[in-house]
Amino acid sequence: MSLLVMKFGGTSVADLARIRNAAGKVLREVEAGHRVIVVVSAMAGRTNELVGWVNEVSALSDAREYDAVVSSGENVTAGLMALTLQEMQVEARSWQGWQVPLETTSAHGAARILAIPRERIDARFAAGMQVAVIAGFQGISPEGRITTLGRGGSDTSAVAFAAAFGAERCDIYTDVDGVYTTDPRITGKARKLDRISYEEMLELASLGAKVLQTRSVELAMRYRVRLQVLSSFGDAPGTLVCDEEDIMESRIISGIAHSRDEAKVTLLSVEDRPGIAAAIFGPLGEAGVNVDMIVQNISEEGRTDMTFSCPVDQVTRAEKALRAAAAEGGLAFANVVTDTDVAKISVVGIGMRSHAGVAARMFRALADEGINIKVITTSEIKISVLVDRKYMELAVQTLHDAFELDKAG
Amino acid sequence: MSLLVMKFGGTSVADLARIRNAAGKVLREVEAGHRVIVVVSAMAGRTNELVGWVNEVSALSDAREYDAVVSSGENVTAGLMALTLQEMQVEARSWQGWQVPLETTSAHGAARILAIPRERIDARFAAGMQVAVIAGFQGISPEGRITTLGRGGSDTSAVAFAAAFGAERCDIYTDVDGVYTTDPRITGKARKLDRISYEEMLELASLGAKVLQTRSVELAMRYRVRLQVLSSFGDAPGTLVCDEEDIMESRIISGIAHSRDEAKVTLLSVEDRPGIAAAIFGPLGEAGVNVDMIVQNISEEGRTDMTFSCPVDQVTRAEKALRAAAAEGGLAFANVVTDTDVAKISVVGIGMRSHAGVAARMFRALADEGINIKVITTSEIKISVLVDRKYMELAVQTLHDAFELDKAG
Repeated sequence: MSLLVMKFGGTSVADLARIRNAAGKVLREVEAGHRVIVVVSAMAGRTNELVGWVNEVSALSDAREYDAVVSSGENVTAGLMALTLQEMQVEARSWQGWQVPLETTSAHGAARILAIPRERIDARFAAGMQVAVIAGFQGISPEGRITTLGRGGSDTSAVAFAAAFGAERCDIYTDVDGVYTTDPRITGKARKLDRISYEEMLELASLGAKVLQTRSVELAMRYRVRLQVLSSFGDAPGTLVCDEEDIMESRIISGIAHSRDEAKVTLLSVEDRPGIAAAIFGPLGEAGVNVDMIVQNISEEGRTDMTFSCPVDQVTRAEKALRAAAAEGGLAFANVVTDTDVAKISVVGIGMRSHAGVAARMFRALADEGINIKVITTSEIKISVLVDRKYMELAVQTLHDAFELDKAG
Repeated sequence: MSLLVMKFGGTSVADLARIRNAAGKVLREVEAGHRVIVVVSAMAGRTNELVGWVNEVSALSDAREYDAVVSSGENVTAGLMALTLQEMQVEARSWQGWQVPLETTSAHGAARILAIPRERIDARFAAGMQVAVIAGFQGISPEGRITTLGRGGSDTSAVAFAAAFGAERCDIYTDVDGVYTTDPRITGKARKLDRISYEEMLELASLGAKVLQTRSVELAMRYRVRLQVLSSFGDAPGTLVCDEEDIMESRIISGIAHSRDEAKVTLLSVEDRPGIAAAIFGPLGEAGVNVDMIVQNISEEGRTDMTFSCPVDQVTRAEKALRAAAAEGGLAFANVVTDTDVAKISVVGIGMRSHAGVAARMFRALADEGINIKVITTSEIKISVLVDRKYMELAVQTLHDAFELDKAG
């Protein structure tokens, strides 16, 4: 008998009516002959409320107590979902993380999954259970304490269950109906993708298309779990995140991602010597600065310019860390120049690997609109540029047209 | 090192400020050199919200899922309390029922405690933990499912922990400051008792002085746990519920209890034969009627009158059950007469055992005020009467004066 994993996010279980709606979707899969593992988030707003309380009580919270408190929201939804399914004559029961058990590391607040032994749930399936409802986001540490997997961790729970139980597919129900070629709020020509590869999804997710938690996509890729992102508020098929080989269409570019609140920091005339990158990015990491793009210009007379980008609200911290490093003598540069008024645009596509000329086409399109490129970085399936923030929407629209993303296939 | 159990009810942990206030009381006991086991309820209103959701989802809820949902409120409070104590530099951690484990029967929704193994908590105390914060009201069944102990079950959790750990005392913090000689809303002369015996407390609790869950008092009596009821909103000492021998004062009567919404049902001219009581109260029990007082008058020519009392909203059900039993031929009587306009007044006191004349004094006082007594029952430490409901307040005030309960000792 085939098994499906269905995951419902916070907005999909925000109240009893929505839980009923979600249960109806589960019922349909049961009637189609599937066993189902349902993974639920907390009702929308609940986790934030709990996190708010913890933060108000304690500035430097004991992460073990944080986990014990914030995991309670998922327990409520799991029980209510099981009851709702029972009302629909479905044999269902809820499972909290420790009951499965979903075994994790002791890294409270950001625990990693170690194992999901199948015995207990399999025994219940064998005894007639049709649906196992799992409280997402949570597990149990080797010490017997409750752990959580980090925000959005229910996606990761769902994929892990799909991997452990060899699920046919892992459906992630959310409040959007799939993955789009770009943000529909920026261009009405944005088109929902039928399929996207894991690699592309990872690039899009980490670039701000926050449909799926990055970690869940990584996990899905590693275990080849077919992921579907779809809306719980309709019946349309969503976007399948799958292996490259399962994508028939030969597309060069899949999507255009953007990130609005970026900043560019340039160190001028840095002494160019072995270890200089570590001397710069070590202190930045310690200061909690999330460095994204890094560009090093050619060296001249033993000095070079080094540019990087980071979230705009971390610029002050970054500058402070760099000046402190210089004062301590570990680093020498002429000046720091910051530009807090930039946005990042990326084109992503696995077809790039086999098609030359993508970069040229991208730069030409931007140039034709008079958009100046400030920084460029590339990876195997992605080209990212920084542009003035005021051009962000125009750049996305221009590139969406240039790569004809509004046309299927 | 001596150990205290401190239990905080829902109103005592209703928000973060109140949790801080409660934690302050715990801190004081820690500073006085005690180890402490804190038992917490859910924040006021939370459990009702969860129960409401469950009932809305499912008319005949799976009690296992009911328990999984409604127990979550206590988990939140336990974690927040542990964090608040940590902020005060107290070594504290939270324990959910399954972590202790508090082992119960599988009677979900009304589980009974089987055992509380001390090993895990003792090990943590030995390792430096000063306070164990326990999520009240919950345990784990032999099947590994979450159970709850019934409404008000956190009192029972607290007493059970006090018994298991040989606590010096079990302090029940609530929104009243102790046990009173009678309801202060009825007479301003009501006086807080310093001490009361288990037996008296049981009579008072079951008669409507809803300060402590009856079951917790029974448990305290069985294991000789010294219980203190006190307010979390002040520093005054409360009322100690303890063994009779620990009460120095020689009091005859400790308190006057009342119950407003009673009804009296009389079966006229019942065939008086062996087994007739069973023939009456069997069907009533099956119909879910909570019969309280029972009085059988003298028999005359093989017929008798039988009177009982029950909550006023169960009278219709009671009458229906009796007429059905008569129709089926198991019971013969001339008529059923109901009086839905009565209240019950009880005087309670262990001194009654050794002092004659309490009943006479009670009846005299009521007669002097022109209050007619409709039914009388007595037990070893209690005399209860039914009177017209309109006289309830007057009867309580009169008896409170007659037994001089406003005077200490």
